[in-house]
Formats: sequence, structure tokens, C-alpha cells
Amino acid sequence: MPEHFSKQFDQELEHVRGRVLEMGGLVEEQIKDALNGLANADLPLLDKVVSLDHKVNMLEVQLDEECQHIIARRQPTAGDMRMVFTVIKTITDLERIGDEAEKIARMSRNIYQSGRVQVPRFTEIKHAAELALRMLRKSLDAFARLDAGLAAQVVREDMQVDEEYRAIIRQLITFMMEDPRTISTSIDIITIAKAIERIGDHAKNMSEYVVFMVKGKDIRHLSLADAERAALDNDN
Amino acid sequence: MPEHFSKQFDQELEHVRGRVLEMGGLVEEQIKDALNGLANADLPLLDKVVSLDHKVNMLEVQLDEECQHIIARRQPTAGDMRMVFTVIKTITDLERIGDEAEKIARMSRNIYQSGRVQVPRFTEIKHAAELALRMLRKSLDAFARLDAGLAAQVVREDMQVDEEYRAIIRQLITFMMEDPRTISTSIDIITIAKAIERIGDHAKNMSEYVVFMVKGKDIRHLSLADAERAALDNDN
Repeated sequence: MPEHFSKQFDQELEHVRGRVLEMGGLVEEQIKDALNGLANADLPLLDKVVSLDHKVNMLEVQLDEECQHIIARRQPTAGDMRMVFTVIKTITDLERIGDEAEKIARMSRNIYQSGRVQVPRFTEIKHAAELALRMLRKSLDAFARLDAGLAAQVVREDMQVDEEYRAIIRQLITFMMEDPRTISTSIDIITIAKAIERIGDHAKNMSEYVVFMVKGKDIRHLSLADAERAALDNDN
Repeated sequence: MPEHFSKQFDQELEHVRGRVLEMGGLVEEQIKDALNGLANADLPLLDKVVSLDHKVNMLEVQLDEECQHIIARRQPTAGDMRMVFTVIKTITDLERIGDEAEKIARMSRNIYQSGRVQVPRFTEIKHAAELALRMLRKSLDAFARLDAGLAAQVVREDMQVDEEYRAIIRQLITFMMEDPRTISTSIDIITIAKAIERIGDHAKNMSEYVVFMVKGKDIRHLSLADAERAALDNDN
């Protein structure tokens, strides 16, 4: 392949990587806005989250198209192919994180529009959301810096978010039993907690793809110990 | 490309398509077993569902690898590329449907192991699950037969599953309010209903990819009317 071809290819890959990070940044904002909207009963902010979801969707469609063009026009090397493959998988997860942010915003709107003024277990929800957001942030950084070690941290952190989720559900069950009038709001909060738990899952998926991109090893469905070993292995 | 090369390529694609359908069949069985386990308090069957999830996961890993090899070894045409791309996206959804089946099995086990003998709203759960299973079956048929029209039906049917899900939640809220002792079981049932609703979402995603594969049009995020128009368009 002539050098200028290969250079143009590198530029195309660089462009796609930049767009993935842009999509990631947008999705992060969506989660933050949804949670701030929930914290402050800020209905216009919640509306904004719902109305901006189409932007995330559009980026997904455009990036999938770019990836197909790259594969069709160039014959990617194994390493480049792993990168394109990682992008194709990653943007599916990013789009679904966007959907979860929208769901949080819709449920929060629900809560305040029914005239309720208090959100039970808000502190715990906020804490779980911070963990999930940190996982997303780290996954995007790991993707940007090709850092398999950072990605491995995210895989481990997912257990924490799952534990927080289970704790919130247990607390809400007690809360509902003590005061059945809170059942309806509590169900909305469970949906919000579930959305946060899923954001953690998607961030974990993204980090698993980063390890694959950098190390060429598929760590999905491995035990945590094996996954960490593969991610931190220096031989590869 | 010499003819025998192209023939071998066709065979590889055919093989991958067959494996996707095999994975789909396995996932269908997992859902059916999970629901039969729930219906009949059949703990060994529920255990089987949980223990077989690794088979679905393995198929995902193997198929992703095959797809990458196909792209690396051959220079797929635009049409073939759409097929490989569709497979890459589809198996992610199939794997996650497998996870939801496992979740249904785990929650069902939970319900019976806590000594509860009755499942509230079981009729409605069964009905929603049948709708979701039909969507999955149709998506796989549409994939096998390259039938964009059939795929479009699935996109429409997803609204029905969503409506069933919302109805189940409303009924369970009333049920819990009337008898707070049922809260804990009801939360497990909500998780099961949510898993069924997500199976519908994933089947819908799969059908959207089929339309893309057959028609070359990305109908994700379009209105239902536009999506159906694109799927049924004969000009393409």
C-alpha cells in the first residue's frame, strides 16, 4: 500500500476514534443532566435530556456507516480490524447508555409531575450513579489511550455498582412495606436504579472491547481473575 | 476474484449464517425453559437454564472471531459486508437475550426458594413472554430468509410487548398496595417482566439489522411509518 494511502487510512481511523469520544462525551452529559434534573426537580433539564437522545442515535448511525466504509475501501490489518471492530461494538453500548439516561429523565419527570416532592433513597441513587459515571469515564479514557490496565479496573468496578443496586432494592422493599403509599414512587426509583446498573454493564462491555483491541484477547465471559490476567499481561 | 475463492467465501458466509440461527435456537430454548420452570416451579429446569448460559456466550465469542477472519481474509463486497456487519450486531443482541433468560430463571428460583407458591400476574407474564418469543422467532426467520417485510412486522410488534409490560407494572402496584406482604415477590415479578420487555427490544434490534442487510437502509431511530416504508420498498 503506498504511503499516502496508509496515511489517509490512519487519518480515517483517527477521525472515527475522535467521533466515538465525542459520542461518549455527549452520553456522559446526558447522564449528568438526568441526575441533576432528578436532584433539583428541574423539569426543563429533564426535557432537554429526552429531546437530545436523537443526537446520540444519529452519531451511532453515522459511525456504523463510517466503519463499514473503512472496511470496504481499505483492507485493514489485523490490528486495525480489531480497532474498527471495537468501534462497531462500542457505539452500540454508548447508544444504549444514552437510552438509559433518557429513561432516568423520563422516570424523574414522572415522579415530579405526579406532584411528589421527595425521592426516597436519593443519596444511594446518586452514589451508584457516580460509580457508573466513573466507569464510563474510565472506559472512554482507556479507549482513547489504549490502556488495557485501566479497562481492567472498570471490569472489577462493575461488581460494586451491582452491589449498590441490590442494596437499593432491598432498602426500597423495606420502605414500601413500612408505608405502602410510597409504592408507586418506589417503583419509579427501582427503574432509575436499574438504568444506572445497566450503564455500569455497558461501560464494562466497552472496557472488555478495549482489552480486546489492545491485547487481542477476548475477555468477555472470563472469570475476573482471568480477565485481569489477560489485560495486564505484558507479553502481548 | 477466482471463482473457487468466491465459492469458498459464500460457503463461509453460509456457515456463519447457520451458526447465528443455531445460537438463536439455543436462546429460544433458554427462554422457553425459564418460563416453564417458572410455571411449574421446576427448580432443576431453572438450574439448567442458568448453567447453559455459557454455551450462548461461547457462540458469541466464536462468531465474532469468524466474522473478523472473514473480513480480514476476503475483501467483502458492499452486500456481503452488510451481511457480516449484521451478524456482528445480531449476536450481541442474541447474547443479551440469553442473559435475560438467565435472569428470568434466577428470579424464578428466588421466588420458589423463598417458599412462595404462587406467582402473581402469571397469566399476563406468560402472554407477554409469548409475544416476545414470537418476535424473536420472526426475527430469526427474517434473517434466514432475508425477509425485510417479516422484519418490519417485528418492529411494529415491539409496541405490544411494551404495552403489556406497562400493564403488568400497573397491576402489580395495585396488588402490592392491597397486600404489602406481596411486595417482595412482586419486585421479583417486575424484574421478570422487565427481562421479557428487553427480549422484545433485542428482537426488534435484530429485525432492524435484517432490514439493513436486505435493503441497505438503516431504519433504527426512524418513526414506525418511515421504517415500514423503507422495509417494504420494492424499488431497492
